[in-house]
This record gives sequence, C-alpha cells and structure tokens, in this order.
Amino acid sequence: MSPSLVVTYHVHSDASAIAARAQAIAVEQSVEMPVAAIDDATVLTEIVGRVDGIEDLGDGRFAVRIRLAAATTGFEAGQLLNMLFGNTSIHPDIALVDVEPPPELAAAFGGPRHGIAGLRRRVGAPSRALTCSALKPQGLSPDALATIAGRLALGGVDFIKDDHGLADQAYAPFAARVAACAAAVAAANAATGGATRYAPSLSGDLDRLRRQARIARDHGLDTLLAAPMILGLPAFAALVADFPDMAFITHPAMAGATAIRPPLLLGRLFRLFGADATVFPHQGGRFGYSAATCRDLAEAARGDWLGLKPCLPVPAGGMTAERVAEMLDFYGSEIILLVGGSLLAAGSRLTEETAAFVQRVHAHGR
Amino acid sequence: MSPSLVVTYHVHSDASAIAARAQAIAVEQSVEMPVAAIDDATVLTEIVGRVDGIEDLGDGRFAVRIRLAAATTGFEAGQLLNMLFGNTSIHPDIALVDVEPPPELAAAFGGPRHGIAGLRRRVGAPSRALTCSALKPQGLSPDALATIAGRLALGGVDFIKDDHGLADQAYAPFAARVAACAAAVAAANAATGGATRYAPSLSGDLDRLRRQARIARDHGLDTLLAAPMILGLPAFAALVADFPDMAFITHPAMAGATAIRPPLLLGRLFRLFGADATVFPHQGGRFGYSAATCRDLAEAARGDWLGLKPCLPVPAGGMTAERVAEMLDFYGSEIILLVGGSLLAAGSRLTEETAAFVQRVHAHGR
Repeated sequence: MSPSLVVTYHVHSDASAIAARAQAIAVEQSVEMPVAAIDDATVLTEIVGRVDGIEDLGDGRFAVRIRLAAATTGFEAGQLLNMLFGNTSIHPDIALVDVEPPPELAAAFGGPRHGIAGLRRRVGAPSRALTCSALKPQGLSPDALATIAGRLALGGVDFIKDDHGLADQAYAPFAARVAACAAAVAAANAATGGATRYAPSLSGDLDRLRRQARIARDHGLDTLLAAPMILGLPAFAALVADFPDMAFITHPAMAGATAIRPPLLLGRLFRLFGADATVFPHQGGRFGYSAATCRDLAEAARGDWLGLKPCLPVPAGGMTAERVAEMLDFYGSEIILLVGGSLLAAGSRLTEETAAFVQRVHAHGR
Repeated sequence: MSPSLVVTYHVHSDASAIAARAQAIAVEQSVEMPVAAIDDATVLTEIVGRVDGIEDLGDGRFAVRIRLAAATTGFEAGQLLNMLFGNTSIHPDIALVDVEPPPELAAAFGGPRHGIAGLRRRVGAPSRALTCSALKPQGLSPDALATIAGRLALGGVDFIKDDHGLADQAYAPFAARVAACAAAVAAANAATGGATRYAPSLSGDLDRLRRQARIARDHGLDTLLAAPMILGLPAFAALVADFPDMAFITHPAMAGATAIRPPLLLGRLFRLFGADATVFPHQGGRFGYSAATCRDLAEAARGDWLGLKPCLPVPAGGMTAERVAEMLDFYGSEIILLVGGSLLAAGSRLTEETAAFVQRVHAHGR
C-alpha cells in the first residue's frame, strides 16, 4: 500500500475485543464491507485498511494505529476527513487522535500560504508576540462596528478579527460592514502610522465566500477569518487555493470537544488545509482545554511538520490583558494574543485599554 | 425578539451553577461578550440570547431552553449551525438536543424538494417499504462497480447508492464511474421493466459538486447521495437549491455521536436543508444507536414539521435481509431498507440474494 496515511484512534474497549475492534475500524474507514466478500486482489492489497499497531494505554483505553491508502482520499479535503473519521465518528467511544499523512497529501493541500513570517510581515513585527482583538457584538450596524474597530486600531492592536458570529445578516451585511470597518481601521492606521489588520469573518457557500473575499481584497484587506467546520473543509481548502494573497485565521466553531483531538483538528489539519493562524480556547477561560492540550495544539500548529509553513497559535476564549505575562511565559512569542470581550467592556476607554494590553505584550521579556 | 428560534441543550452541571451556565450559553450563542458592556438597546432587546427555561432531568443533567434571534442566522445554513452550536460545541458536557425554528427559517431553506412521495414516484411504489443497497468496495474500477450495480438492479432493489467512500479517486473517477454504473442500471431496468435508481455519492467543493450533479443529470439520474457534514452545510444547501429536479439521500458521515442528538441533526436539520431521505445506523448493527434514538430519528425525519415535506428514514449500518420483518414492524413502511455489505457477500449469487431481500420486503404484511 503506497502512499499511505497512518491514523491513530483512541478506543475504549475490553482488552479481549480490541483486536477485532481495530480490524473493524480499518475496514470501516476503507472498504466498509466484509473483506471476505472482496475478490479483487488490488483492493485487498492496496485499499483495505490495515491495523499497524495496538497499544494499551491503561484504564480500558487503547491507541489503535490504522494504515489507510492515500488514494482513497482523492486528495480532496472533505474526502480526507471522510476517510479519517466519517463513519467512525459515530462511535461514541472512539476518538481521532493523530494523522501522519504522506508527502503527497501535504503537497496536494499546501498548508499555510503565508505562515508565521507572512503574518509578522503584515504588521511589521518580526519577533515579538502579536496582538488581536475581536469586533462585536453582532446586532450592531456597520457604522457602530466601524466605530469600535477604529478605537481598537487606535489602541495599536495588530489584528482585529470579526466575531465569528458576524456573518451576512440584515443588520450588518458583509459588504457594508467590511467597507465601514476597513475604512475606520485605515483611518486609524493613517493617524498612528500603525499597520493594524482587519480580518472579516466569512460565511456561506463557496459562491458567497469568493464574493466576500473579493470585497475584502477590494477594500485593501489581506487577512480573513474562517471557521472551517462551519464552512465545510472543501470550501475552506478551495478558498485558500483561490486567494493565495490572503492570510487565513481559522476559528474553532463546531469543532467539538470530544471526537477529534484539538491539536490534530485545530493544529495540524487546519494548518494542512491552509490556516496561517488558528484560534483556540486557552486554558482557564470559558472553555475546558487543559494546559497539556493547549501546549500540544500550539506545537502542532507551529512545529516542524511535513515541510509546511508554520501556523500561529491564537489562544483565546475569555482572555484578559491581565493574563498577558502568564500566556507569553507559557507559549513564548510565536503567538497571537487575542483579548476580545474584556477589552470591549472598557466602553469609552476602549482605545486606552487596548493600548495598555498592546503595551504589556510589547514590554514582556524586555 | 422576533422571529426567534428556541434551542434546547442538555447540560451536565451542578444544580447551583445551572442558572449561570444557561445564561452563559445564551450569551455565547449570540453576542459572545459581556452583556454589561453592550449599550445598544436594539442589541440588548433583539439580539442577546435569552434563557427560556431550565428543567432538571435528574442525575446532574438539565434541559436548557435558549431563545435566539432568527436574524442572527442570516438565513444561511452554516451560520444557522454556528448560532445553534458553534462555540458551545467545544464544551464536552453540553449536547445540542432540539431546535424549534420559526416559519421564516423553514421558508428560507425549503426542506425536501421531493420528500417521501417524490421518492416513491421515482420507483413506482406508492405504499410499500422501499429497498436500497450500497455499491462498494472502493478501489474497484468503474467497470467492476458497474457489474455489481447491474447485478443489484437485476435483483429489483429500488435504490443503489454509492458507498459514501466512493468519491473522485484515481481508480474510479466520478465521471467514468457514473457513466458506467448508470448504463448498467439502465440496461438492467430495460431487461426487467424495473425502475431502480442509481444514486452516486458527491464529493468536493461546490464547483465540483455542481459538475458532478450535472454529470449525473446528463446520464439520466435523478437521485444523489450527499454527506452534509463532509461537504459542509452551506454547500449542501446550495446544491439542493441549484438542482431542484434531484432528490437527495443524506449520509451521516462525520455527524458524530455525542454532541448533536441524532434525531435533530440527521432527522430535522438535514430535512430542513433538503434531504429527501436520510441514512442512519439502525440499532443492533455496527453502531450504537438505541431503539429510542432510532424511533425518534424516524419521527423527526418523516413526521409533521413546519409544513415541510417528509423525509424518508433509511436505517442502515450492517443490516441483513434477515432483519427485514423486524425492521418493518419497528418502523412501518414509510422507510427505505438499506442492506449493503451483507448482500455483496453473496458473490456470484448477488442478484438472487438481492431479489430475495426485495421479495421479503414486498411480501411483508401482505
């Protein structure tokens, strides 16, 4: 079987049943039929999944390694996910934990087009940690959102991303919102000499996504926010390929918590498909990721992997400016620090609080 | 707030914390920021989610009902999912259980274009249960798959669906596979006077999906298989709208088991977006759905709901012809019975075994 992917699942099982369960996963994620009923020699040798190894992790949990033919993915994002976890996702006691794809798959998707260096270049910060805030709440008009965006930009934050809830709603249609917010951020940049990037959130089917990306480009923007599990991986991969000038920050909405290990989905897979930066919930915020999960996720995003450009981790989910030092000590400076709602709570002092957050990041470790 | 959706979540929580958690969900799934920091009156009254009710289900589990503004969905499929469960999906102790959408949302998506009556008309069976088998294994050539499809069609099965693993792989590209299989099924229909429908599986981004749907139409096909959670809900909804002549059978790949209750996702939501029939794992097969889940899912798919056409349940996942009577007693005849791999195990007797399966279904209850 060549080339192939090695996929690791964690399975809760009786020890006496694990060999059969591993074999069942190998079949389910490849031919999905009784192997005895297959008489085609090529299918049997090249296509049927194989159990590569089973490791007892204790407590009734096993790591099962399955080898799948890369050809079954058709080198397409949705089908890759389908082969990794399509039917097996329906088993509540099996988690998808790791994937080792062959070079052919890395080449087919290409990974981040800009990576950490490209994001750093955008905001003129070659080495320090980067900063980000979020534009919200949804329900505001384009002008009201633009006012907030301008204030955040005056505070000197590197990136302002739309809240992932901002889509193409009647109260703030994408085109009107992006025009207003891009202009407000450009005006702030002109006033401060800064390079703040506004990253609007994309939504809808591929036609709409392309229309929105073109609108963003027309307004001079070069960074976009996308939630791959909402858009669908095929659409996300197509968008990355269609707009090579754009950097993509991914959002974890609908990524779930239990079925696919976050370092794999939000770190590796989103990076494989082209995320330049990946937002995820940092420990101790509103979500339950552990410190170990966060560390593994950051490493999966930015560590050496398949020769792909690194992807910047963006820990978020209820962070505050007070946690800057702790987070920088935890992650180092290859990171975007995202503080959203807690800055917005500053009301009329938004620019000053943003500047204080930015200052903390810039000053750390000097 | 008007119009609005009422969304039900099941939350594992201490009783002392549930009120705060419910309020946190209402905020997370709407404005995602501290409500105290919002000074816009319209946002506060029309957009911020509201806790509609909390019910103690016992065992530390609570049903939390949240009211969300329909306007936040932009009446778009991906954004609807985002508002229902985007960030909250990241909490391992919260499940999405039910949605009551307003008529405006039902009208925006339109539901099944053909429904049960349309599928019955396709195969000339106004009242009996329908039958289906699956074309596999992947890895075979188009001609080898066509041979199997022809044999299944000679057996008189109503629908032959591609295995959801069949995509656009090098060993059986979509165009070549569909041409060969459509011809084989047409030849069998001509020989038997039957009306077997071949439903090819679609994959890839929206450009490819449209190309594939047009190829299917060019070969005289009128029924397609799609896995919405692989393709992305926006792409699935776009496809349904673009090809109103096509009936869609949905596949549950990547639908997971724990985070969204199957009757909601595979029954209601897929139906809302246009599924005419929905495949799901029946109890006692390879997957772990309970009898109650299966019954609820069938009812969600085909029961009265929002004035949408009904969607045919397709219980599957390791079914055998031996279970026909039991399944018909369980579900009644508004159903497609899908027996896949176990028929293929018949080898050279495939047509005869298929005919025996079909015969059991036709004879049941006479």
